[in-house]
Amino acid sequence: MFYARSNIITKEMVYVALREGVSSEFVRGEIANGHAVLPANINHPETEPMIIGSKFLVKVNANIGNSSVKADLDSEVAKMKTAVRFGADTVMDLSTGTQIKDTRGAIIRNSPVPIGTVPIYEALQRVGGSVEKLSWELFEEVMVDQALQGVDYMTIHAGLLLPYIPLTTERVTGIVSRGGSIMATWSLAHHRENFLYDHFEDLCEVAQRFDITLSLGDGIRPGSIADANDEAQISELRTLGELVQIARANYVQVMVEGPGHVPIDKIAENVRLEDELCDGAPFYTLGPITTDFAPGFDHITSAIGAAIIATYGTSMLCYVTPKEHLGLPDADDVRAGMTAYKIAAHAADVAKGHPAALRRDLELSKARFEFRWEDQFNLALDPEVARSFHDETLPAPAAKKAHFCSMCGPKFCSMSLSHRLRKEQRIEIRAKMEEKSAEFRSMGSEIYIPSQP
Amino acid sequence: MFYARSNIITKEMVYVALREGVSSEFVRGEIANGHAVLPANINHPETEPMIIGSKFLVKVNANIGNSSVKADLDSEVAKMKTAVRFGADTVMDLSTGTQIKDTRGAIIRNSPVPIGTVPIYEALQRVGGSVEKLSWELFEEVMVDQALQGVDYMTIHAGLLLPYIPLTTERVTGIVSRGGSIMATWSLAHHRENFLYDHFEDLCEVAQRFDITLSLGDGIRPGSIADANDEAQISELRTLGELVQIARANYVQVMVEGPGHVPIDKIAENVRLEDELCDGAPFYTLGPITTDFAPGFDHITSAIGAAIIATYGTSMLCYVTPKEHLGLPDADDVRAGMTAYKIAAHAADVAKGHPAALRRDLELSKARFEFRWEDQFNLALDPEVARSFHDETLPAPAAKKAHFCSMCGPKFCSMSLSHRLRKEQRIEIRAKMEEKSAEFRSMGSEIYIPSQP
Repeated sequence: MFYARSNIITKEMVYVALREGVSSEFVRGEIANGHAVLPANINHPETEPMIIGSKFLVKVNANIGNSSVKADLDSEVAKMKTAVRFGADTVMDLSTGTQIKDTRGAIIRNSPVPIGTVPIYEALQRVGGSVEKLSWELFEEVMVDQALQGVDYMTIHAGLLLPYIPLTTERVTGIVSRGGSIMATWSLAHHRENFLYDHFEDLCEVAQRFDITLSLGDGIRPGSIADANDEAQISELRTLGELVQIARANYVQVMVEGPGHVPIDKIAENVRLEDELCDGAPFYTLGPITTDFAPGFDHITSAIGAAIIATYGTSMLCYVTPKEHLGLPDADDVRAGMTAYKIAAHAADVAKGHPAALRRDLELSKARFEFRWEDQFNLALDPEVARSFHDETLPAPAAKKAHFCSMCGPKFCSMSLSHRLRKEQRIEIRAKMEEKSAEFRSMGSEIYIPSQP
Repeated sequence: MFYARSNIITKEMVYVALREGVSSEFVRGEIANGHAVLPANINHPETEPMIIGSKFLVKVNANIGNSSVKADLDSEVAKMKTAVRFGADTVMDLSTGTQIKDTRGAIIRNSPVPIGTVPIYEALQRVGGSVEKLSWELFEEVMVDQALQGVDYMTIHAGLLLPYIPLTTERVTGIVSRGGSIMATWSLAHHRENFLYDHFEDLCEVAQRFDITLSLGDGIRPGSIADANDEAQISELRTLGELVQIARANYVQVMVEGPGHVPIDKIAENVRLEDELCDGAPFYTLGPITTDFAPGFDHITSAIGAAIIATYGTSMLCYVTPKEHLGLPDADDVRAGMTAYKIAAHAADVAKGHPAALRRDLELSKARFEFRWEDQFNLALDPEVARSFHDETLPAPAAKKAHFCSMCGPKFCSMSLSHRLRKEQRIEIRAKMEEKSAEFRSMGSEIYIPSQP
């Protein structure tokens, strides 16, 4: 951010400009005014620079990480690879179980995308889960350790202030953010203000030194439809807006996290408020889940919300897997979550009229209409799945050249009929043109008709 | 519709009023003014009456049916049962393969939900697939046969007029509706207007006799993002609006079908135009699919569009399965499509503030917050899946009483911390109250504090 504001274009800015198809100067400008962030810890050289902002392609983050119930280093690295393979733009390691540091190290050293964490988890782990024993000093230690390892962005729950806690008591689902509930418990136990808020400038100092992007966590995001857009949530958002200004004043890149559970009719309001209260800082939302009633399918309930909120201007979507609310996701869940969210992000890019997104849809549809099956599969989000679904009912290699699929069969294929139609129309149009020109000719006019339509 | 306009409340109206939680008079009024339809062929006594209209719960239709590539009567009946089990409000039999009549008969005789068809498919089958040989007389014969069997609603592609066909030649994907491409091919072959349009009043006569609801098919719906909301589509919609008036004048219940492929930013316009041009007739949309780029996952690309369009007022959603564009769906695809669409419909009901939908979400979230796992599973859209996902990582029966799941483990469970927080807050609030009252007492005031908060 310092370079951007000093009118210096770094090679990272050049790289993302090429990835996004915009000018480097445009990238610099968006970083300088805080409307976009380029998370790249100086200690994570393995990362390929990417940018998060509402004027760029919508990004998707995948959460991975172990828990005390289920922890295994290799499977977390495998999840990271699965996430990246299926298009994750960033990955958050939310481990809370054993080997937190080693797991994170292995993930960072193998990851081409920026890695995010929630440092308060490791801090809590270091004090054996006793929330009361947390302190700013311990937190700073953890933050520096993670910074040295190369974490690119960190979620900080600094906006959950003491006066907001009573606002959550009448809620249906209270506080559902892990970091939020930890900070609230600490505050009440000590009858003191959130130490992340009190030490926010110190925290910015660490972030600035390593070029870590801060992601302001919404510790009191709604955990159910009934709690959406309530006073607690909006009060915290207002505080996050203040913190955005402090971060920027300290040359720290910053984005703002959002809900959670929100019914479709209240999504637009969320984006409007974030933009207004947080001065256009990139919005990074979890879903939102648009109905509570489908545990086991929250990748779908939330892909709906994600597509809508991204259309309104959210810059990055944090995926939700089918296991949300039920258990720790495995690699299959990571794939299912990523697929649903790449769809949500792309549908938003299409709605926003991004030329690259429109082009992709156009090329796929052309291939479909022209029965170029292989092209259609290869242009698809997941060629493997598209190909296997097609081959299930029409497996012969010859079927790849067929002008129909098993859905309608040869006689009922609308696209096949459509082709015949065009051919006939060309003949008919030609006949009409000839008729018309005969008319003109009879009136003494000279008309040229090309021999091929 | 005749009864409704004659101020007569039938027992079917009473039944749907109970199902929807509204008054019978409200139901009668909505049917009378054409803003809702109650599809119930007099020859389908097995059906449980249901209503389709924007002021009622959003409905979902499941398409089943064989094709010439894959045809098997039993598996079609099984698909119908799967669809109904997972919440289909109506089922359309779109068979185009062999045994069309027997398949349909078996489906109708076993179905508790209204059955819809596209009669032109059977008509084309009867002439061996030669589009040119189709005629109004043949169509009428097919329609009466199907009416006698008990088909509750029929899709009629009567709005695709001769002048609209040239409007499709510049499209990326031409005409993608099977019925639409059949009628366009017939019209061009005979250089005559669509016979379904020319004979629309005769067609209404048959429909009225059996109380069949007409569903006006959008034969030139867009088949790709690039073709959405184009002149061809809107021209046909205008004609469908004229046909709505003719149907109503003949006491025939009528709804209007909609697209297809539409980017998120163009969805609202579709609903507005339908409402305006078709005088509030129930809108029945296929998806819409919001991006072309994910064959194999079009249940998700379209659930996004479906949730949005239903929030704007679409009355019934026609599901799309993962096999769309690739092959004939099997029972698993039917289940996946239904699940995605029940989510879309419910998310829209929640957004529209339907009391029953909000209640369902509220009760599930309460169960979640109170760690009543069994209640949470049973209130879920698909209890089987929710339960199995949870048990995968925490299978012991004791885990059902645990105040955490494998996602966060015991120490990091926000909901668990939230409970502790509430308890502490109650103590703290009580301490504050006592302090305050001591103050008042010292000023000579009398204050009563209940012994239990």
